[in-house]
Amino acid sequence: MATKAGGDRDIDDLPRNAANYTALTPLWFLERAACVHPQRASVIHGSIRYTWSQTYERCRRLASALNRRSIGTGSTVAVIAPNIPAIYEAHFGVPMAGAVVNTVNVRLNAATISFLLEHSSAALIMVDQDYFSLAEDALEIIADKKKSNFQHPILIVIGDETCDRRTLQNALKKGAIEYETFLQTGDPEFAWSPPKDEWQSIALGYTSGTTSSPKGVVLHHRGAYLMALSGPLIWGMNEGAIYLWTLPMFHCNGWCFTWALAALCGTSVCLRQVTAKAVFSAIANQGVTHFCAAPIVLNTLLNAPPGETILPLPRTVNVMTAGAAPPPPVLSAMSSLGFRVTHTYGLSETYGPSTVCAWKPEWDLLAPETRARLHARQGVRYIGLEGLDVVDMKTMAPVPADGTTLGEIVMRGNMVMKGYLKNPAANKEAFAHGWYHSGDLGVKHPDGYIEVKDRAKDIIISGGENISSLEVESVMYQHPAVMEVSVVARPDERWGESPCAFVEVKKSVAQKSEQALAEDIMRFCREKMPAYWVPKSVVFGPLPKTATGKIQKHLLRAKAKEMGPVKNSRL
Amino acid sequence: MATKAGGDRDIDDLPRNAANYTALTPLWFLERAACVHPQRASVIHGSIRYTWSQTYERCRRLASALNRRSIGTGSTVAVIAPNIPAIYEAHFGVPMAGAVVNTVNVRLNAATISFLLEHSSAALIMVDQDYFSLAEDALEIIADKKKSNFQHPILIVIGDETCDRRTLQNALKKGAIEYETFLQTGDPEFAWSPPKDEWQSIALGYTSGTTSSPKGVVLHHRGAYLMALSGPLIWGMNEGAIYLWTLPMFHCNGWCFTWALAALCGTSVCLRQVTAKAVFSAIANQGVTHFCAAPIVLNTLLNAPPGETILPLPRTVNVMTAGAAPPPPVLSAMSSLGFRVTHTYGLSETYGPSTVCAWKPEWDLLAPETRARLHARQGVRYIGLEGLDVVDMKTMAPVPADGTTLGEIVMRGNMVMKGYLKNPAANKEAFAHGWYHSGDLGVKHPDGYIEVKDRAKDIIISGGENISSLEVESVMYQHPAVMEVSVVARPDERWGESPCAFVEVKKSVAQKSEQALAEDIMRFCREKMPAYWVPKSVVFGPLPKTATGKIQKHLLRAKAKEMGPVKNSRL
Repeated sequence: MATKAGGDRDIDDLPRNAANYTALTPLWFLERAACVHPQRASVIHGSIRYTWSQTYERCRRLASALNRRSIGTGSTVAVIAPNIPAIYEAHFGVPMAGAVVNTVNVRLNAATISFLLEHSSAALIMVDQDYFSLAEDALEIIADKKKSNFQHPILIVIGDETCDRRTLQNALKKGAIEYETFLQTGDPEFAWSPPKDEWQSIALGYTSGTTSSPKGVVLHHRGAYLMALSGPLIWGMNEGAIYLWTLPMFHCNGWCFTWALAALCGTSVCLRQVTAKAVFSAIANQGVTHFCAAPIVLNTLLNAPPGETILPLPRTVNVMTAGAAPPPPVLSAMSSLGFRVTHTYGLSETYGPSTVCAWKPEWDLLAPETRARLHARQGVRYIGLEGLDVVDMKTMAPVPADGTTLGEIVMRGNMVMKGYLKNPAANKEAFAHGWYHSGDLGVKHPDGYIEVKDRAKDIIISGGENISSLEVESVMYQHPAVMEVSVVARPDERWGESPCAFVEVKKSVAQKSEQALAEDIMRFCREKMPAYWVPKSVVFGPLPKTATGKIQKHLLRAKAKEMGPVKNSRL
Repeated sequence: MATKAGGDRDIDDLPRNAANYTALTPLWFLERAACVHPQRASVIHGSIRYTWSQTYERCRRLASALNRRSIGTGSTVAVIAPNIPAIYEAHFGVPMAGAVVNTVNVRLNAATISFLLEHSSAALIMVDQDYFSLAEDALEIIADKKKSNFQHPILIVIGDETCDRRTLQNALKKGAIEYETFLQTGDPEFAWSPPKDEWQSIALGYTSGTTSSPKGVVLHHRGAYLMALSGPLIWGMNEGAIYLWTLPMFHCNGWCFTWALAALCGTSVCLRQVTAKAVFSAIANQGVTHFCAAPIVLNTLLNAPPGETILPLPRTVNVMTAGAAPPPPVLSAMSSLGFRVTHTYGLSETYGPSTVCAWKPEWDLLAPETRARLHARQGVRYIGLEGLDVVDMKTMAPVPADGTTLGEIVMRGNMVMKGYLKNPAANKEAFAHGWYHSGDLGVKHPDGYIEVKDRAKDIIISGGENISSLEVESVMYQHPAVMEVSVVARPDERWGESPCAFVEVKKSVAQKSEQALAEDIMRFCREKMPAYWVPKSVVFGPLPKTATGKIQKHLLRAKAKEMGPVKNSRL
């Protein structure tokens, strides 16, 4: 090829050659980490402590073992596991084999998992021993269907010394291959290649599908590479970071920090189960510098009994949070404990977070409430995302940067997914007008920072006025008795819809009657929000959540509907 | 396009569309910096302090003004300027217009510059007022040639309030357009577009051409983007860094930190002239956190008179150095002053540094000499470079990682140049066998770190044995009287060649006779190196340097040849 590299004519006449072009892929990071820091801890789990040299060898074995089973380009490998070393290894070993890694949310039920496995034509399933029977159930559902072309996948069971040995034995008896045995069938020196095209798919992840069938979000090598570099730059996460896996790796590939940690030659500290005690203990004992967490995890840390916390923190711990906007009081409380909270926002469709509330040093001088208000905004685009705007849903024109005009948040650039798997209709809708449509509603502030106001479908329309359920919730979080709250539309005889609040009360709060507490909360709301925003109904009890910890508003919406319309509603 | 995004068949059947793909280009960083930190200082120079909002506007004006003069895709714009705001702006404004920026080394002579301008068909020249007559001279040389097709370029003169106003007036009298006037002809809201193809050329820089005609190194948008992210990640340079421009921006686009600073929303502190006093003063007064410098600048800082230094440093200052390996004593001394020195290595052909001596925390516990020895190595590949090796020059087989077997350092990946402009022969040689050939000789240590031993042509062959001039120099630097030293081959009647040392003595050293000092140095060498390495000749005096501060070994080699062969040489 080099001989063709002429450059005889003009300045753009210099074609690619083998020396100056290769596909962007995060797989390079692993090879580099093993070369630069072969002895540094890559993944820690219980008494297991792998080095980068070992992780590289294990991933090459995995890739080789997959290839030897005819699993390669075009194949999908499903992983059903919590945050254990094997799922980390799958992020490298599977694409090194040329295949696509589909990390499956372990909290899904067998029926949903059966849909995923069939839809993605999983050729092999890596399943943690404790989820083996779940995988079996899912496969049985497919087998019972008459018309399925689904080929029974190879079953690999991952043993974990922290679990009951008998569960593993049971899986092996049923013919599953143990993960470590499978690795032994692979070549530790496997000569992997980068993909020929960086647009090749690397990962598949299904959205939680609160309203319809789950959609399979397909990501490519190029995007994974760019996100793995952007995340650390945005967060100020440097070489050698020690990262605690509170965020499930099956949630959007751990926001691509799986791959970023190899780029940084950092250390992954695994957690099977997220508890306040486990998080504080990892901070104290493993030198943790960074972790990501949904706002619910921050709540858990803040409300942990004193015996489970280790305070003051031995060092600044950097927390990246995303998902629903954390309420200002939560952000303030975390900061005062010594956590540096970076607030981001994104979706599976954007490789995880793609906007950040970029902090300005001058904001440090503002009053705490102002700081918290600024901090609760979703902010500006990531380095790796090239377009972010809030647009009118009909005209696609950008809304004015006035902090009040509601529009849809849209993104475009290299950190937007390749598309949904086998779903042309959804792709057409998602990519209409040259933008990715998030389905989230927000405003643009005069300083260019965006703020999410609600999911399009979560807006409550009361007497013709739009009410953002998120804003109502944000105020209600300030009430001392409220642990978690979710506000949805309930039919209303007079107003069409009116806000209905579902509230989970803090355990530490002295019990009042529900009636008295509801009245107290409504009084609190009336003082702090427009009258038409105030929930006309308050319901107490635990909130239903998705596997990723998101409150399932559609269930609450159904419940509010079942309750029937509000009668004699006053303003 | 979105309607074609089907995904009907398999997991790779999801084509690019306007929402999920755009060319990688560092131009996005500027737009983002202006959005996120519009009021933060972007570029500081004397009493001038631009904000990111202003820099973005000025760059858009520049791009628009260029387009209005029909300068766009395929055009080259030359910039002849020291580190002032205009050259920073050219790094964005010129590619926003679609054109290629060619930053010219201001220390070149008119004849060489005339070659560059003609070779690159410069359509416009932006020239600092103090270099206007140099540009004029260069253009005159071209005009005097009979056969040139070169069209006289548009001349833009950049005024600088820190310079003599009359020089500017003179340039204007001769018909040049003042830069600020030119900007006024451009649209501040200019709607720039990213390149259609990220492989499009963004920059052109000529190698110093010590042996032949300068070669034009062409870089593309993709590589500039990747290097702008890799550099900060390698260096631990975070958002908002304050960067001092000791390294000329005309040297390989300031190792791409021009573009990196926009990605980080950092601040550029300009320096027209690098002196120890200016560097220390910027550290004290401007909050400088980072700078890059050739080893000679480190020498200048270390040997500055006490009145010009500000010590202890008010904060850790991060220094990235590259070029010739800094001698261990220089590295030690810098560290002890509180500079954190990161040692890198690369070439114009690799967008600047492409290897780094990645520091391991455990090395902090080693003895200072061991630390300095490890630190002086060129290390491991950058995140953005995918291949680095040391290979046998004949067989291209990797040399053993034994720290002694000499081979050529080769690279490959996305941070290797597009190629040399209009030079197919040089491209063929540079890209032979699927690698970029650095022309540098080195070894690979057992830990995988590479160490440069010499330029291929700087090896001295004495009695059939290879002597690395660099290693001889490294030892000689430890002699207390040596400020700078360069060792080359001198003809030798008995051995064919023998080492000849050219030495610049420290001013602070008490004067001995040259004869006594030479003997003292040779005695010192005999104690510390194999006998056949010891220079047979020592010559005192100032060392000739290239415009980028590299010692011009070819001149010394010529001088050594003129001296005639060494006679009666003993071992």
